[in-house]
Amino acid sequence: MSKDEQQQRPEARKPRGFPDRTAAVIAAERKLVDSISTVYQRWGFDALDTGPFEYVDALGKFLPDTDRPNSGVFALQDDDEQWIALRYDHTAPLARYVAENWDRIPKPFRRYSAGPVWRNEKPGPFRFREFIQCDADSVGVAGPAADAEMIAIAAEAMEAAGAAKGEYIIRVNSRQILDGIMETAGVVDPAQRGAVLRALDKFDKFGVEGVTLLLGKGRKDESGDVTQGAGLAANQIDVLIEFITARSVTRAETVRKLANATGMTRSGAQGVAELGEIDAILSALDIGDDAASFDPSIVRGLEYYTGPVFEAEFLREFRDADGNVMRFGSVGGGGRYDGLVARFRGEPAPATGFSVGVSRLAAAMAASGEEKVQGPVLVLVLDKDQLADYATLASDLRKAGVRAEMYLGSSGMKPQMKYADRRNSPAIVIVGGNEREKGVVTIKDLKAGAAAAKTMTDNDAWRSERPGQFECPRSEMVARIKAITGVS
Amino acid sequence: MSKDEQQQRPEARKPRGFPDRTAAVIAAERKLVDSISTVYQRWGFDALDTGPFEYVDALGKFLPDTDRPNSGVFALQDDDEQWIALRYDHTAPLARYVAENWDRIPKPFRRYSAGPVWRNEKPGPFRFREFIQCDADSVGVAGPAADAEMIAIAAEAMEAAGAAKGEYIIRVNSRQILDGIMETAGVVDPAQRGAVLRALDKFDKFGVEGVTLLLGKGRKDESGDVTQGAGLAANQIDVLIEFITARSVTRAETVRKLANATGMTRSGAQGVAELGEIDAILSALDIGDDAASFDPSIVRGLEYYTGPVFEAEFLREFRDADGNVMRFGSVGGGGRYDGLVARFRGEPAPATGFSVGVSRLAAAMAASGEEKVQGPVLVLVLDKDQLADYATLASDLRKAGVRAEMYLGSSGMKPQMKYADRRNSPAIVIVGGNEREKGVVTIKDLKAGAAAAKTMTDNDAWRSERPGQFECPRSEMVARIKAITGVS
Repeated sequence: MSKDEQQQRPEARKPRGFPDRTAAVIAAERKLVDSISTVYQRWGFDALDTGPFEYVDALGKFLPDTDRPNSGVFALQDDDEQWIALRYDHTAPLARYVAENWDRIPKPFRRYSAGPVWRNEKPGPFRFREFIQCDADSVGVAGPAADAEMIAIAAEAMEAAGAAKGEYIIRVNSRQILDGIMETAGVVDPAQRGAVLRALDKFDKFGVEGVTLLLGKGRKDESGDVTQGAGLAANQIDVLIEFITARSVTRAETVRKLANATGMTRSGAQGVAELGEIDAILSALDIGDDAASFDPSIVRGLEYYTGPVFEAEFLREFRDADGNVMRFGSVGGGGRYDGLVARFRGEPAPATGFSVGVSRLAAAMAASGEEKVQGPVLVLVLDKDQLADYATLASDLRKAGVRAEMYLGSSGMKPQMKYADRRNSPAIVIVGGNEREKGVVTIKDLKAGAAAAKTMTDNDAWRSERPGQFECPRSEMVARIKAITGVS
Repeated sequence: MSKDEQQQRPEARKPRGFPDRTAAVIAAERKLVDSISTVYQRWGFDALDTGPFEYVDALGKFLPDTDRPNSGVFALQDDDEQWIALRYDHTAPLARYVAENWDRIPKPFRRYSAGPVWRNEKPGPFRFREFIQCDADSVGVAGPAADAEMIAIAAEAMEAAGAAKGEYIIRVNSRQILDGIMETAGVVDPAQRGAVLRALDKFDKFGVEGVTLLLGKGRKDESGDVTQGAGLAANQIDVLIEFITARSVTRAETVRKLANATGMTRSGAQGVAELGEIDAILSALDIGDDAASFDPSIVRGLEYYTGPVFEAEFLREFRDADGNVMRFGSVGGGGRYDGLVARFRGEPAPATGFSVGVSRLAAAMAASGEEKVQGPVLVLVLDKDQLADYATLASDLRKAGVRAEMYLGSSGMKPQMKYADRRNSPAIVIVGGNEREKGVVTIKDLKAGAAAAKTMTDNDAWRSERPGQFECPRSEMVARIKAITGVS
């Protein structure tokens, strides 16, 4: 190859933040999407896919502050010079859809959506630029009953995803109460409000002490990095800390505490009353305090929320590579967004929704033990002039429902065995001249072989006995392989 | 609302070529992806998703000439100034993946992929800018056995998708033969070769006469638009026409004709020999001439093909809105692309693959009769203070596996009935004060009601009899609704 050709060769490399997803991950995500979609479906939601692109002005700017402000999306100019961007969630495009089709859709409008969303953020570990979300939304619903339903759906979705009772919790708060308490504390400047919300959001991570610092002068982390504080005075901080620590074991008790909190504003009091109604309906739906709880420290980053907000937390513990006990934390969330459709229409269209971060939840599930994908049975190719025969053997297995392939590379027997091993094949089928003459096939049960190998120490014994390997008539091949692979 | 606010309101509109996909379409596509993936899986392919973006240089320029040359993809600059683009197929990213992970993957490498691809083309009817493709590829496989396998898989995939024997055909040709025949005809200039391939590709549509014009001076269509011809002389055209009309009823006969064609080049003869081998293996796999046929007029647009190429055609007829009998034609294709991985690695890595255009096939299936999605059972809300009770009724139905929801809007009884109708609900559950007192529910079987309404003419009789409506004890509600909805 000439130098010229080498220079022309593109480098085989992948844009950052978009990992190649292999079979086990894809299967795990698919399983989650299917089981969560089934829940949404059963609750009366219909599927809708609004497509990848929206006009930038239709998407709006509701992403939480990122490292790169005024950014956060993948945008490009269409050939008519208009700016379009990949959706960053399923909610903003839904609002566009509802506004565009208002006169044609049934109201309330209930839809679910499962598919990728894209965020143009700095990639990092477990921080991808594409991830799958699975959402349910009700548009044209005003009362807390619709929010209660969303919370119940969130709990059911978590269980459908494989989280047992006690392994998840749906935490609920209210933007109205948050607004009320900030008003009471005298936080009115929009920038300061943002800083306060970001500080409160860290309660789970840094506790009272950390949040107190973040609400005040700022906080220095272990590496010495300083996070600028919200700059509140001590008495303001007290009001907020009393508020975010109001969480009790039962929803009813938390509502009572919040109702009795000093200086609650009118809209804050309304938010508390709504939580009371939500509690009643959740109880009717058998959603206990162990499944959904009221937590005044829950914020949710997206800026379009206007009422109750919820967060689904996955509590199951796992050990990281260093043996530390870890939790994934938030794997979904949602809330009421009464202004999003009104952006387009001018008239109010109250709405509420919930979204499961499927990619994140799949990663969390995988962290507690990933399953290996079972490979195909491999029919070895020993005589090139017998390809049609080998192809028929593999075809017979597939017709019986067994995953099977004929080896298609150009290597000899040993690399073919190695290939079967790398593919995690349960068995191989061998037909050489000897077998052909006798009308038999040799089957190697690779699982049985591997199990036997563990208990054997003498290499010679291994060679002579060949555990898991046997001959059988061709007519019995399918039945024997079905027995090995567990296909019925 | 002030004028200012109105001006700020974004318009609810959607970028062209990205239709909103509703429940029936999504369900049809999902079903196709699942059944085709199952085929790929059974043949030993593992799932792999390479993600939406690739570096532009890694993607390469292999798209057929579009209305906008040097375009065809959605590209943008990443924050490190490098150009990335959404994949236009699953094959180019696979080549990048294989090259990048060469030392870590089993070889042959067999993967399948199902997901959207994006093409920045002029949108039109049935011409979208996002569509779902479902691909299987074998990399590191040189012989025609691998191509034969792909053709067999294509046939199996079409049947799994719901096409009966005779409703589809896999047409097979060879780029080597095409190249050979062009050489024989004296077509060597690359631009002229492109024009010739595009002309041959129209054989199905325009027949011998039309292709003769396109190979020569050009062709004027009914609207008067002129397509520039390839400018060949009459004797050149004769060679090509003899070639593309060489198709016979059986593969064996077509191979014989091609083998006897005058002036075949060496590489062309090799292509013919390969077709012979492919025929033998297809026959061993029970793929008859009615399922896969050799057709010298098949071209395939993508420029990376180097050997056998295949096209899956859906033959089922349907009637368009004007009553004309139509066929969708090509719903998938593939072929051998021995140079695509070598672009990165410099060393050869022969490969072959097949891709089903799922969105297109789903549209074709839908054209012969689309199924309506069954809506949820609706529990009407008549007394706002009984929300918890209504919620419980709907929950009881869901627990029994019935799709059900409580009405969440703010309208009265009549609009609620209308909503149930628009959602295609099979039944509604009514509990007013009367029912509550008696411990019963009223169930309205909307299907039975609609059926009865068809046979009734007197409006008054309708009102008094209320067909399909009955009372039953609350304890029997679930069983009665299950009977209506057919949930067992």
